[in-house]
Amino acid sequence: MATYKSISLVQRPSDKKIGPHLFETKELDIPEVKDGQILIKQTHMSLDPAMLGWMSEDRESYIPPVELGEVMRSSGVGEVVKSKNAKFAEGDKVMGMTGWQEYVLSDGSGFNKLQSGVTEEMALCVFALPGLTATTGLYNFGHPKEGETIVVTGAAGSVGSMVGQLAKADGLRVIGVVGSDEKADWIVNELGFDGAINYKTDDIESKLAELTPDKVDVYFENTGGPIQHHVFNRMNAHGRIVVCGMIADYQADEPSAGPNWIPLIKKRITIRGFAMPDHWGELPQLLEKLTPYVQQGKIKYRAHAIDGLENAEKGLNMLFEGKNTGKMIVKL
Amino acid sequence: MATYKSISLVQRPSDKKIGPHLFETKELDIPEVKDGQILIKQTHMSLDPAMLGWMSEDRESYIPPVELGEVMRSSGVGEVVKSKNAKFAEGDKVMGMTGWQEYVLSDGSGFNKLQSGVTEEMALCVFALPGLTATTGLYNFGHPKEGETIVVTGAAGSVGSMVGQLAKADGLRVIGVVGSDEKADWIVNELGFDGAINYKTDDIESKLAELTPDKVDVYFENTGGPIQHHVFNRMNAHGRIVVCGMIADYQADEPSAGPNWIPLIKKRITIRGFAMPDHWGELPQLLEKLTPYVQQGKIKYRAHAIDGLENAEKGLNMLFEGKNTGKMIVKL
Repeated sequence: MATYKSISLVQRPSDKKIGPHLFETKELDIPEVKDGQILIKQTHMSLDPAMLGWMSEDRESYIPPVELGEVMRSSGVGEVVKSKNAKFAEGDKVMGMTGWQEYVLSDGSGFNKLQSGVTEEMALCVFALPGLTATTGLYNFGHPKEGETIVVTGAAGSVGSMVGQLAKADGLRVIGVVGSDEKADWIVNELGFDGAINYKTDDIESKLAELTPDKVDVYFENTGGPIQHHVFNRMNAHGRIVVCGMIADYQADEPSAGPNWIPLIKKRITIRGFAMPDHWGELPQLLEKLTPYVQQGKIKYRAHAIDGLENAEKGLNMLFEGKNTGKMIVKL
Repeated sequence: MATYKSISLVQRPSDKKIGPHLFETKELDIPEVKDGQILIKQTHMSLDPAMLGWMSEDRESYIPPVELGEVMRSSGVGEVVKSKNAKFAEGDKVMGMTGWQEYVLSDGSGFNKLQSGVTEEMALCVFALPGLTATTGLYNFGHPKEGETIVVTGAAGSVGSMVGQLAKADGLRVIGVVGSDEKADWIVNELGFDGAINYKTDDIESKLAELTPDKVDVYFENTGGPIQHHVFNRMNAHGRIVVCGMIADYQADEPSAGPNWIPLIKKRITIRGFAMPDHWGELPQLLEKLTPYVQQGKIKYRAHAIDGLENAEKGLNMLFEGKNTGKMIVKL
């Protein structure tokens, strides 16, 4: 009988470090498909910074943690290789919460077929968590207006690169903060950002001042770190700060201090934290908003693919080290 | 010819300390009233924490600073003692931006007559800056819901005491943070708050936990200070933080650090800073909201009155030292 690999979470990252000791790989029999079910062979699996939170014992967060012994949570794309469900045909490509496993047995709920013309990578880079998160954060909470200035941290990341391109298409001045010259080059020369700051090598304060002559109206935060205070201090009156990620602090023993709140009053600023699971109910509207930008060729993306389920843990660490160049995907 | 006293700002509080050296008192001739003008004899003048900002050289704030040599800005109530303006009769009691002076010559714009039954103290404590600020902050940004828990800092202050009473009338659990047992007693036993924390003497963390068994949905911030981190850590998912004042930090050389932003994502929290001048256009709606609570006897207030324009500077310092018990008013 044929078998497949499945990776479960068996220990929590108590020191916030991700390593092989947290996981257990099992070799399981490929299950029988019963009436109403489909069997999906996963081909492309998404790796996301949120996974560190999902592994942690934090029942206050926006979704419950993965239980110990459960298959590690992830989204992904796969092919239906066997179907006893009238809604799916063998050969369909579907996207959904697949988990860290080569095969998924499902009743089909939560899985959607890819639209024609949408590749597996485009599905995970644009129409899954990154694109929907960017669309929700920018439009629900950033309220961008033509002619305004937006600063995006983690600007070469899967969400940040989408946010910047959407804002650029809407006529904003778009400045991205990145951690390498290669990423700076990509967002400016490929994606069309108006400027980039390399937080590792630039003099942040003077570079930010130079690139934002009209200061900052929307601040889309994906990273945290020292850049936060500089951007915060440069906000305009009635500015909107959208807090989507704080990857620089997720692994810190002691999270870094935030800015004092006096400027929030003086400048009447709104800070809004959000997480995508609150917004799945808005999926049709979000896709309606996002799709035209993609169809008009205004959204570029790049995947950083690694091979093999056994390398998922290494890929996740690359995300936290900022070593990925594009949306992290595991090809199976 | 009769004269009157007028106090001008002549120096900025560069060290954020308020003292007599910042002001100059002039003895001026009571001016002649021309067509269209009214002469107001100020009887009750308001002192507010915002004044420190108005004195400072900060052109980024929500209203421009008082220029050096200008009469110090304030709101107040007075009696029209001479009128050549058809809209006002001699004897009318009016409220508006009076400034630190005994008499005000005006074309009447920006001055409103007190409604019948409204005393001078009620006008300044309820229907002026404190009440309107409380109403705006609580309803525009706090979105209180029956059964939720709200924590108000500066709870015995002019704004905080109003916020707490409005929220209590709306069926919330209301906890106030104050700086003395006398204030704690007043908000609980006179105003009907569900509990009080004396931040100077209580063990804040355990007292807060005890008083907020269902944690905190709305946090109305008037003070800043160490209490901020405790309340922030106790917010529920989808909590709203309304930042109205940071009086503990206004005079600090180095404003204290704010909380890290990770919980904003996990709990999808909104932080909103605001200042009343943005909302004068909503005055009719705000009064429509606020007035029924007052008419139904749900709003108590207390004024802390001091006598004589020459004591205004001392009164202002009492505010920053937390020594006032009630809305600071100068009686002239």
